Amino acid sequence: MPNALILIAQGSEEVEFSTTFTTLVRAGIPCTSAYVPENPAEREPSDRPPLARCSEGIHILPDTFFSAEDCTPDKYDLLVVPGGSKSSEIMSASPAVQQTVRNFLDAGRVVGMICAGVRVAKAAGLPQQPVTSHPVLKSELEDAFEFSDEYVVISGKLVTGRGPGASFLFALTLVDLLCGEEKRKEVAGPLMLPPGLSI
Amino acid sequence: MPNALILIAQGSEEVEFSTTFTTLVRAGIPCTSAYVPENPAEREPSDRPPLARCSEGIHILPDTFFSAEDCTPDKYDLLVVPGGSKSSEIMSASPAVQQTVRNFLDAGRVVGMICAGVRVAKAAGLPQQPVTSHPVLKSELEDAFEFSDEYVVISGKLVTGRGPGASFLFALTLVDLLCGEEKRKEVAGPLMLPPGLSI
Repeated sequence: MPNALILIAQGSEEVEFSTTFTTLVRAGIPCTSAYVPENPAEREPSDRPPLARCSEGIHILPDTFFSAEDCTPDKYDLLVVPGGSKSSEIMSASPAVQQTVRNFLDAGRVVGMICAGVRVAKAAGLPQQPVTSHPVLKSELEDAFEFSDEYVVISGKLVTGRGPGASFLFALTLVDLLCGEEKRKEVAGPLMLPPGLSI
Repeated sequence: MPNALILIAQGSEEVEFSTTFTTLVRAGIPCTSAYVPENPAEREPSDRPPLARCSEGIHILPDTFFSAEDCTPDKYDLLVVPGGSKSSEIMSASPAVQQTVRNFLDAGRVVGMICAGVRVAKAAGLPQQPVTSHPVLKSELEDAFEFSDEYVVISGKLVTGRGPGASFLFALTLVDLLCGEEKRKEVAGPLMLPPGLSI
């Protein structure tokens, strides 16, 4: 069974984070949340990550600290980057996160980025390719990528999502890629998604 | 500006909780999360609530403890009960929660319940009326209410939602009732909801 790593930082968007995490878990994909500190000194003196105050004020306790040594494509089949303005700045500025994204794609693993999380694709220097993201980021991202207005875009192993409202579509697409269409349907059914979301 | 109280307990459903909380905050409605302990002794010796381990494993720190004395319709315009099997058992079994639900409705305040959270309506002895909830709860709820298959049902001041996939529809309906249709549209726009969810 595949397993997944989802990044979290101060200011991560709660709905994108929690919808992706829970949909993967509902599909039987264990999901570990890894905290990306704004300042590496945040990691001292404890190995227990702090609470992340998410973008709209919910406090979530991450499972572990992110480190490039622990978060490798040997250990995880999927890497997820949620949105949130501050969170995406922190993750984009981290050379370790940038390198981890490249490592996962180089190893043929799936990488999912949603909303402002797609900034990390640009920071990591990924090749020109189709992506979607929140429209407010169009001007920032369209020089590096073919910016799409779709809710979810699959480009090879890179899956991008548009914003909080597209979280279930994004997460179910990841389930489909990792576990197949039957598992996607099995997970989607009990979620009680209105028609536009059950695609 | 109205403000809201959202209950949380061990086993609350993360997406329903976080989607409702963040959508209200996006609408400018301050939202306080109040922890309902399974055992009143959980409150001792600290006044700081513990982490709630939600239904799919995300740990959320509630803002405060729930108490009937603090959670009154004088202080809050909206009371929200999220789903989650264990969470709904804990909340349904609490006489203080049952009384608070009745107090809010008696005072003409809005009460929102989603998915298994609708069990609390039955535990509180609310009158027969239309509700929706997850289909797995139909047999449990249809003796007390007119059980609907809609995604969101408005019955007077009681708003019910069907499941995690209906969270945005449910939350936006609450925004509409508290702040009007214009605010609902203003909040819904940037969420990037696929067509079926932008109703």
